Amino acid sequence: MRLVVALGGNALLRRAQAPTAAHQLANVRKAATQLARLAGEHDLLLTHGNGPQVGLLALQAAAYTAIEPYPLDVLGAESEGMLGYLLEQELANRMPAARAVATLITRVEVDADDPAFQAPSKPIGPVYSREQADAVAARHGWTMAADGPGWRRVVPSPRPLRVPGLPVIRGLLERGTLVIAAGGGGIPVVTAQGEGWRGLQGAEAVIDKDLCSALLAIELQADCLLIATDVDAVYLDWGLPAQRRLDTVSADELSRITFAPGSMAPKVEAAIAFVKAMKRRAVIGSLDRIDDMLTGRAGTEVRPDDPQ
Amino acid sequence: MRLVVALGGNALLRRAQAPTAAHQLANVRKAATQLARLAGEHDLLLTHGNGPQVGLLALQAAAYTAIEPYPLDVLGAESEGMLGYLLEQELANRMPAARAVATLITRVEVDADDPAFQAPSKPIGPVYSREQADAVAARHGWTMAADGPGWRRVVPSPRPLRVPGLPVIRGLLERGTLVIAAGGGGIPVVTAQGEGWRGLQGAEAVIDKDLCSALLAIELQADCLLIATDVDAVYLDWGLPAQRRLDTVSADELSRITFAPGSMAPKVEAAIAFVKAMKRRAVIGSLDRIDDMLTGRAGTEVRPDDPQ
Repeated sequence: MRLVVALGGNALLRRAQAPTAAHQLANVRKAATQLARLAGEHDLLLTHGNGPQVGLLALQAAAYTAIEPYPLDVLGAESEGMLGYLLEQELANRMPAARAVATLITRVEVDADDPAFQAPSKPIGPVYSREQADAVAARHGWTMAADGPGWRRVVPSPRPLRVPGLPVIRGLLERGTLVIAAGGGGIPVVTAQGEGWRGLQGAEAVIDKDLCSALLAIELQADCLLIATDVDAVYLDWGLPAQRRLDTVSADELSRITFAPGSMAPKVEAAIAFVKAMKRRAVIGSLDRIDDMLTGRAGTEVRPDDPQ
Repeated sequence: MRLVVALGGNALLRRAQAPTAAHQLANVRKAATQLARLAGEHDLLLTHGNGPQVGLLALQAAAYTAIEPYPLDVLGAESEGMLGYLLEQELANRMPAARAVATLITRVEVDADDPAFQAPSKPIGPVYSREQADAVAARHGWTMAADGPGWRRVVPSPRPLRVPGLPVIRGLLERGTLVIAAGGGGIPVVTAQGEGWRGLQGAEAVIDKDLCSALLAIELQADCLLIATDVDAVYLDWGLPAQRRLDTVSADELSRITFAPGSMAPKVEAAIAFVKAMKRRAVIGSLDRIDDMLTGRAGTEVRPDDPQ
């Protein structure tokens, strides 16, 4: 089978841990142990989030005040290098030497007119006091929003439309290469042109990695989209006394349920998009049970709608 | 022809400029304009340095003191993402849309017993006072060395031995993909093993990008190795009144000349290694004239030794 596995960035740098290299390597090793078993039996495209990682890069950039912070497309590219390297190495260390693994730096085109650019919503980087927030907003032209007791920069999260590197990803998968790509949802780029060139340029944005993974899974005609996170399934009324787990649900049923914005809503949206387009299953669940997710023994299975 | 082009990191962030994203993008665009012409006519593997870029990442990491700085393998991977993304995008913007471009995160194996690990020599990151240098050395276990009036961390630069991703690079080149790989000389890794795995792990080191490029050019049986830098040729007695340019030189002749350690010595060593192994030409010269370097109208041509 051809699988697309979307790995949560929070699984690689956990909120309760300091974002050190040692913690990250330990988490990557745990993830790789789970994923290597799956990769041993299937063609696999691995995508991953980068929220905590790009957050760390933004903190470091903010701390080094000698130059203007680098833009988000470049920070995203850095995070693809960092996490792609660690994942490739630890996966390769757990698979037969003959199995090729490739990590691709991946750009993803978004629409320069996407309404998200007018409504930045994703917090990133340091927490500021109100006065500091006003100062950095004036200096860098950033949009700031209240976040708990402080203020943070918020950035747009436009919809992924197209992956320029798709033919390369497809070609590698067809030859049995395990591919790591579109880390962090991909590097956001928009159509542009300048003197002597015409094509794409970076955008100050981030892309949701689950939506990008669904786009890739559809374009690559994947047999299953597995969204690996740190909860074991999708829950109704999450956090309330009445919370209950969804074992299996049709895309239509799931699309009638409203989830609070945050981590689960884009996963659900991505799963529905894949299942509706491909008439194949998507599964949302815990990385610890990724094998069982594929065989229907763990996670929430989102299945095609029942025939009318 | 199949070409390997090694692009100097200093061409992308120049010493005389602040290391801003805007300067780097402008320099990448200039480089891409030169390289796109070459890529239009030949199969091309592009490698690049990362000295100024990894230096910037080290400065940012040093400024953010909340956590221990990330190790050099991870910083190298970040720099591969950053520069690979920019180069891929600007090259793709200047070539026909049908030509595929792929940027690979690339590990390069070095020997854990390489003598360089006992004699760190490459300065990186902030300049410290003597007292600060003693403090960071004690805190992080770093080796420090005098650098002008201050002190800096010095790190090992072991020899590149093997590129685990070579089959992927070769496969992409064979299908006409322009490949960007082994940025910064590649991410240094050494053989290791742990609980449940056996393979490679990161090393606190940097790798010379010219030596790594020669290794790749030999393994890929390239027709020519082009080393693009910011001087127009190799000079004898550089900087002295008697300085003179080498237009063409045999590998044997060149190997009898001593160059001061620094930027030119590894370029000369890399060119000699390629020419001796392949009996084909290498050219060292200025990026501005990369087409002319290939046709023998610019740069220093290092040619195979004359038949005995």
